[in-house]
Parts: sequence; structure tokens; C-alpha cells
Amino acid sequence: MINASACGVIDACRKHRDRIGRLYAGRDGIVGALTEDLIDVGRESAATLRDLRHTPAGAFGSARYKLKDLERDLPKYQRLIDVFRAHDIGYFFYNGGNDSMDTALKLSQLGSELGYPVACIGIPKTVDNDLPVTDCCPGFGSVAKYVAVSTLEASLDVASMARTSTRVFILEVMGRHAGWIAAAGGLAARRAGDPPHLILFPEIAFDRERFLARVKETVEQKGYCVIVASEGTQDAGGKFLADMGTRDAFGHVQLGGVAPTLATMIKQAHGYKYHWALADYLQRSARHIASKVDAEQAYAVGRAAVEFALAGKNAVLPVIRRKSSKPYRWDIASVAISAVANREKKVPREFITADGFGITPACRRYLEPLIGGEAYPPYENGIPRYAALKGVRVRKRLKTGFKV
Amino acid sequence: MINASACGVIDACRKHRDRIGRLYAGRDGIVGALTEDLIDVGRESAATLRDLRHTPAGAFGSARYKLKDLERDLPKYQRLIDVFRAHDIGYFFYNGGNDSMDTALKLSQLGSELGYPVACIGIPKTVDNDLPVTDCCPGFGSVAKYVAVSTLEASLDVASMARTSTRVFILEVMGRHAGWIAAAGGLAARRAGDPPHLILFPEIAFDRERFLARVKETVEQKGYCVIVASEGTQDAGGKFLADMGTRDAFGHVQLGGVAPTLATMIKQAHGYKYHWALADYLQRSARHIASKVDAEQAYAVGRAAVEFALAGKNAVLPVIRRKSSKPYRWDIASVAISAVANREKKVPREFITADGFGITPACRRYLEPLIGGEAYPPYENGIPRYAALKGVRVRKRLKTGFKV
Repeated sequence: MINASACGVIDACRKHRDRIGRLYAGRDGIVGALTEDLIDVGRESAATLRDLRHTPAGAFGSARYKLKDLERDLPKYQRLIDVFRAHDIGYFFYNGGNDSMDTALKLSQLGSELGYPVACIGIPKTVDNDLPVTDCCPGFGSVAKYVAVSTLEASLDVASMARTSTRVFILEVMGRHAGWIAAAGGLAARRAGDPPHLILFPEIAFDRERFLARVKETVEQKGYCVIVASEGTQDAGGKFLADMGTRDAFGHVQLGGVAPTLATMIKQAHGYKYHWALADYLQRSARHIASKVDAEQAYAVGRAAVEFALAGKNAVLPVIRRKSSKPYRWDIASVAISAVANREKKVPREFITADGFGITPACRRYLEPLIGGEAYPPYENGIPRYAALKGVRVRKRLKTGFKV
Repeated sequence: MINASACGVIDACRKHRDRIGRLYAGRDGIVGALTEDLIDVGRESAATLRDLRHTPAGAFGSARYKLKDLERDLPKYQRLIDVFRAHDIGYFFYNGGNDSMDTALKLSQLGSELGYPVACIGIPKTVDNDLPVTDCCPGFGSVAKYVAVSTLEASLDVASMARTSTRVFILEVMGRHAGWIAAAGGLAARRAGDPPHLILFPEIAFDRERFLARVKETVEQKGYCVIVASEGTQDAGGKFLADMGTRDAFGHVQLGGVAPTLATMIKQAHGYKYHWALADYLQRSARHIASKVDAEQAYAVGRAAVEFALAGKNAVLPVIRRKSSKPYRWDIASVAISAVANREKKVPREFITADGFGITPACRRYLEPLIGGEAYPPYENGIPRYAALKGVRVRKRLKTGFKV
């Protein structure tokens, strides 16, 4: 949904050509801004930009690159201002999660200090849904839909053959610190008792004995057991399950290993045949099963970011505000970046059932609207038609380069 | 697609009510037939049967249960004939792969010998696509589409962040003995050089040094490397990679471990940051991204099976015959089960590039039509509306039970 937000920005800029002459994208996000590696968005064709809106991942590239505080990373912040000044950049839109919002905030402060004020507007995006203030994060609804649908489908598969084959299926999903994505697996259940039978949240301390007892009980009652486990599942001491069980042949701990760790645990305790899946990037890039609501919200926050900038705002971000759950109604509000930077929103206890293994009706009321509707991409020859950018670079104007 | 074939059978039986009075489904496949655990399909509502056509897995249940040859398992074959006789069953339709076809064949022989001739008609189904004689197997086209789409989407994700994060992504797919599903990953590439950069087939002996060299070359040229690996990837000695690398904390070999084994190998040789996904059951139950061609073929073989039976055929199965690839045209032919039982169709060498790491244009011509079109299920509250059967049982008529 990063590209959908980008399209919201692009379309809003075009609507205001009188005030925004050119739109550049940092190649690989903030790294491109630092190295003056800028893509001239105006050189992309209308057809490419139409396809961009339904293309997964970040077509201009993205970066795992965190700027530290102003004292420690001052040269980098100064460099950004230099690049902006050189290219007459007056508005800076930063699409990301907690860290990115923090950078945007600091940049807005420094620009004014250095005599080159830049309007810095954040655009929220995290599949983890862990930003505070906003009701939900663009990107999350689609991952949630993928996980709900995949859980439902795999459950039918396991149910159909449990009598003579696999008894336990484990789906490991993303969410290192917050269990929103795991919670979405619970949407697969239409009726009480439907799979998934257990959800493991990072918010609930993993208790081996209770877990094993519930698995046994479920298999004895239902014939099989489906588990959705967050990669962040951890014990009472805060130790990640992923770091406990599986080692490679050289004795190195294997990461992304909650599912095999649980599977081995169950096999040893109960002897059940198991299967497990690790969706990894498939879940967050699964544009083919995107939520329509999510696609609309991602576009809307991009467009709103430009409108905020043109309205003279600074150091704010557009957030999604829920007006009602049934029917689902939402709008966009403006919030100071300082309210969201470096804070995490976890799944509240009242969204998790008392036993710690499921979602409550309140959680379902929150989650269900976010996976509403299907925003299918167009297909060609059996696969989606996703955009491939030309990525024409802007001529550099600074004499000095910059190593990141 | 098992349910789509079942719907083909159901609809054809209803068309011929004069000759087929009732239709029963074995609960959990052949196990239900043996234990006289039969579902009266006529008791399901029209709405349920409409939804059944787009419901993944096998709604009547399935079994991993192989009957051995007539000499060793004679009592089981005799029991099946007893059950058929007790319920006046004249036509037996068996949906499955190699083993199931073999059982259907033997049953047709024994029925005649025992004075209770039953028309035994096979209905082909394997996601592995490894049945000979038929151009393709129902079920495969949809898995192929899922793998092609997922490879494309994850590749965009990796490409967008390779500069500062993950360099290597590995998707492990099904296909223990034949690389058809892995080959389908190759459909993600529109142009030469597009990901996936390497495909590992069970048909090509894995050579560690050549593999590692190609990964390095790819990362240096493209900035990242996407690999689709069959779970059946094996070395020249026939040793599965999945059995080599990963052990749990207790020293037990972890299955389903081609991807982590390769990832560890690459990390140790080149130090690249990696991610991997194991789609497992998600790939074969992913009805949400089913191929329209596959859905049509699955239904058509079910319908044809009934027509064959009513035409007096026995020990045959309907197969898909390709009449042209571009435009794709196919029809259904009747083939003796003896021609398919216990034989496997592997990916031919001319479908794999000379270097062993990709698919040839001939392979693409074969595969591409099979993933054509999208057969989306209907959705309710954000998730697909899949059928839940009543599963009303047929009253038992035999005095004796049967332990499987």
C-alpha cells in the first residue's frame, strides 16, 4: 500500500501544479534523499502511474535506515536540508512507521533553525499496525485480510484430512512486538469453535504446559488443531520462542522459527503429525488479496498529506479516524507527529480472550471492517500487471557526495 | 479443486436421475467407503452445493490411505464390494492421484470376479501435476498461479529494500518428486532477467558450489536474488536437502527445511541477509487466487466421469487433452486407468534451461495457459464464503464394522 499512498501524493500534487512544480521521490527512501539520488516522478507515464496504485512493495525503493537523534546524526539532517535547498524542495513527505515519523519531526525542527523551513508531513504505513493515535495503519488491513483468508483456507485443508494425516497446523505470521496480525487470523472463524483454535500473541506470555494441554484438548474434541502464532511470541521472561528451539546443523539459532519450535514441542509431547507455514514476505506483499478499505485509506492519507502541506501545516501526519464500526465509516484527521513518534500500540488486553488464546467480540468489531472489500489488481497472462518504473534520475546539483 | 470435481459429478448425476438414484460420498474418501461411513449428498442444500464449487480442500474429507495389491489387501477390496452391494452402488468415482487410480483399477477387476461388477471411474487430481497421459492435473493450475503470483509479489518486496536490507529471498514450494510447482515460479518473470533468478528442481542434481556462485553473481548484478526451491531438491546422490541442514534443539532433523538450509548455506558463504517463506498448505488451499482454467477443468472431469460411467465405460479416467496453447484450447478424453496407475510424470529436461536454474520458452508455453483467468470466490465480511456441509449420514446396512 506504500505505492497507493504515493499515488495519493502524486495526484494531489498534480491538482496543485500552480503551487507544486515538480515531485521527486528519494530512490530507496531516505537514503536517496541523503545521497541526492532522486527520481523525477513527472517522467513516469500515465499508464505506469495507474498501475502503480495497485502495485505492492515500494516502487521507488525503501530503506532500513534510521537517523539517530539530532546531536548524534546532525550531519545527516544537515545534508538533507542541503539537498532540499539545492533542489528547491519545500515539502517533504515521509511514508513510514515510528522511526520515519521521528526523522520527519526532527527535520522540521532543524529546517527552521537552519533558515530553510521545510514542511515535513508524515504518511503512516506499517503492516504491524502499531502506530498510536491513528485507528489503523495503511498496509495492515491487507495483511490482515491475507492472514484471515489463508488461515481459513489452510484450516479447511487440515480438517479434510485430519483423520489419517496432519492433526496440527501452525501458521507463523509477522508482528515482532504487537499481535495485530496474529489477531487477524481470528477473523477466519465465523462461528464459535471454528479454527483457528489458538492464537499466540506477543502480548501474552507463552506458557508451554497450558499451550500443550489446549492443543491436546482441541485435537481430541475437533480432530485437529489450527494455530496462528506471532513471530513475537515470547515467554514470561521476554525470551522469544523463535530463539529457543531450532538450530541449524552448525548449532546456530534459526530465526523465524516460532512455527517449527511449536511443531517440535507438540510432536514430542503428543506425537501428532504436524505441518507449518511461514508466510514471511508473502503476507505483506500479497497485493492480489488486498483489502479495498485499506487501499482506499492508503490513497487517502497520501492525498491528505499534500493538502495539509499546502494548508501550511508542518510536523503533522494524516491519521484514520473511525466514526462507526457498523456500518464502517472513517475520515482523515491531522495529528502532530510528536504524538506518534517512538511509541508503539499493542493489542489491548480486552481484545484478547481471558484464556489468552483468542480474540474477543470487541477485537472482531475493530478488525473486521479493515479487511472489507477486495481490491483486485488487473491480470495479464495469469499474473497481476504491476508497474515497472522508468525511474529517471534528477541531475545532481551538489558538489559533494554522501556515504550512507 | 477437489470440490469442483465433486460438483461436476453431482450436477451430472442430477441430470441423469433416471439412471442414478442417489449419490453418496465416502466420508474421508476411501476410509468412509471401507467403514460404511457414507454421506448422502442429496441432503445438502442447493446453496451449499453452489458454494461447494469454489470451496478449497475436500469437503467430504479425504484420506492418506493406500490399498496395497490384491493379494495383500484382499479383505479390504472385498469389503468395498460388500459396501457397494449393500447400498446398491453401481458406479464408483475415485478422485485422486496415482495411488487412488491404482485402487480404482483393482476394484474394477475384483468386482467382476466377485460377481458384482462396479463401474470404477477415476477422476484425476494432484497439485503435483505428476500424472502421466493427462496434459495437466486439476488442482495444479491453481497452485501454479499462487506460486507465480507470490513469487512476483515477494520479489517486488525484496527488490524495494535490497540496498539496505534483505538480499536473498527463498520460497520453498511443494513437489517432492516432480518440479512442476517450482517451475510455475518462473511465470513471475515477464522479461529475461526478472526474478525468480534461480529455480531448484528435484529433477536437477543440486550442486552447492554452482548454486552459491550463481547467487553471488546475481546479487552483484541485480542487487538481490530470488530463489524458488522445490521441497524435493536433492543432490546427485538423491539425498534431499531438506534432510541435511536444519536440526531442532534436540538434534532431530527438521522436515520442510530446504529454504532454511539454503539460507544458512548462503549466509555462511556470502554473508547476505536473507528471508525465506514456506507456503506449505497455503499454496494448495489458496482458492482465493484459483486459476479459472483449472476451476473449469476440475468441474469438467467430474462431469465427464459420470458420462463415461453411463456410457458403459469401466476402469477409465477423463484426462485433459491440449489442442492448442495459443489460444489455449482443450477437451476431455477417456483413457484406461492402467495407463496412468503408479507412474510419475516429471518435468522434462527440455523444459529446464541448460544451466538447470530456469524454465525454457517451451515450459512457459506449457504452463502459462494453466494459470489463465481468475476464479474468485464470493466474499462475506472480508473473507470468502466457503461451504460447510451438513454431512447427513446414510444408515448403515452391514452387520459388521471395519477397522482401518
